[in-house]
Amino acid sequence: MPTIFFLGPKLERDKRKELIQSFTETASRITGVDKRAFTVYLKESDPECVGVGGELLADRMKKQ
Amino acid sequence: MPTIFFLGPKLERDKRKELIQSFTETASRITGVDKRAFTVYLKESDPECVGVGGELLADRMKKQ
Amino acid sequence: MPTIFFLGPKLERDKRKELIQSFTETASRITGVDKRAFTVYLKESDPECVGVGGELLADRMKKQ
Amino acid sequence: MPTIFFLGPKLERDKRKELIQSFTETASRITGVDKRAFTVYLKESDPECVGVGGELLADRMKKQ
Amino acid sequence: MPTIFFLGPKLERDKRKELIQSFTETASRITGVDKRAFTVYLKESDPECVGVGGELLADRMKKQ
Amino acid sequence: MPTIFFLGPKLERDKRKELIQSFTETASRITGVDKRAFTVYLKESDPECVGVGGELLADRMKKQ
Repeated sequence: MPTIFFLGPKLERDKRKELIQSFTETASRITGVDKRAFTVYLKESDPECVGVGGELLADRMKKQ
Repeated sequence: MPTIFFLGPKLERDKRKELIQSFTETASRITGVDKRAFTVYLKESDPECVGVGGELLADRMKKQ
Repeated sequence: MPTIFFLGPKLERDKRKELIQSFTETASRITGVDKRAFTVYLKESDPECVGVGGELLADRMKKQ
Repeated sequence: MPTIFFLGPKLERDKRKELIQSFTETASRITGVDKRAFTVYLKESDPECVGVGGELLADRMKKQ
Repeated sequence: MPTIFFLGPKLERDKRKELIQSFTETASRITGVDKRAFTVYLKESDPECVGVGGELLADRMKKQ
Repeated sequence: MPTIFFLGPKLERDKRKELIQSFTETASRITGVDKRAFTVYLKESDPECVGVGGELLADRMKKQ
C-alpha cells in the first residue's frame, strides 16, 4: 500500500514505464515491502501552472 | 473544513454525485462535523500515468 | 489502486475503522473496482495548523 | 524547498503570475527561507469534479 | 472551497496565523472567491524526512 | 522543481538517505532535469491511520 507521487514534466510512455518500474523496485528493496503493494502516480506539471522562485516556470524556461 | 481526495477511474456525472454525497454523509456522521464544512476532490487517474506493482496500469489492464 | 485521503479531526480507533470500511465499500460499489485494490489514508489535522476563512481553526473553535 | 499547492478555479495567466509571486514573497518573508527555494503548484479544480457540502460544485454554482 | 497546502518549516503560532491570513486574503482577492470558502493546511516538514538535490535536508542544513 | 512524495513505513536514517538519493538520481536521469531541482518528501504512514481493502492496516498486519 505504499504510494508514490511524482510531479514533474510530461514524459513519453517508455520513460513513464521506466520511472514506475525503477521507483517501485528501489522502494520495495529499501522498505522490504512486496512490490505488488506499491502504487505510483505520475502527475504532469504544466509550466504554465508552476511557480519557481516566485516566477512562472514557463517564463523562467524561456530565459534559459 | 475536512477535505477528501479520491484518486480513481473516470466516472460519469451520476456516479460522481453519488460518491460525493455518500462520502460526505458518512464522514459527517462519523466525525460529527456539519456536512456543509466538507470539500471532496475527485481526481481521475489516467491508466497511462499510474503504476501498480511496478507496471503501467494501462498495460496491466490489457492482460486481464 | 484507487487511493482516498481524508483530512479531518482526530478519530478514535472504532471510528477510523468505520470510516475506512465505509469509504472503501462505497467507492468499490460505485466504481466497480475490487475493494482489495483500495488504500485509504487518514490524516489528522491539528486545529493549530489549519486555517478556515483566513483564521486559525483553533481560534475559531474557541469562539463557538 | 517549501512547496505550496493551490487548488482552486481556473485562472488567467496574469492572475497565475500574481498568485505565485504573492504566495512566494509572503511565505519567504514569514519563514525566512530564500524565495528561490519555493515551488508553487496551481491545480485547477473542475466544478464537475468537486463536491461542497455533499453536492457537486457545478450544481451548486447554478443555483447561485 | 479552494484549498491551499503549505509544506515548510515549523512555525510559531503568530507566524502560522499571519501566513493563513495572508494566503487567504491574497487568493480571495485574485480569484474573486469569498474568503470564507478557503481552507489552508500547514504541514511542517521535518528536515529528517525531506530531500533536496538528492541529499537529506538535515545534512544539507548542517553544512551551511 | 519536480517533487516526489513517498507515503510508506517508518524508515531509519540510512534508508531515508538511500531512498532520497536513489529516487532523485533515477528521476533526474529519466527526465533530464538537474538533480538539484528535486525535492522529496517522505511521509511515514502509521498503520493505525491507513486502510487497505477496507481494513485497518494495523489489524491486517497482525493476521499475517
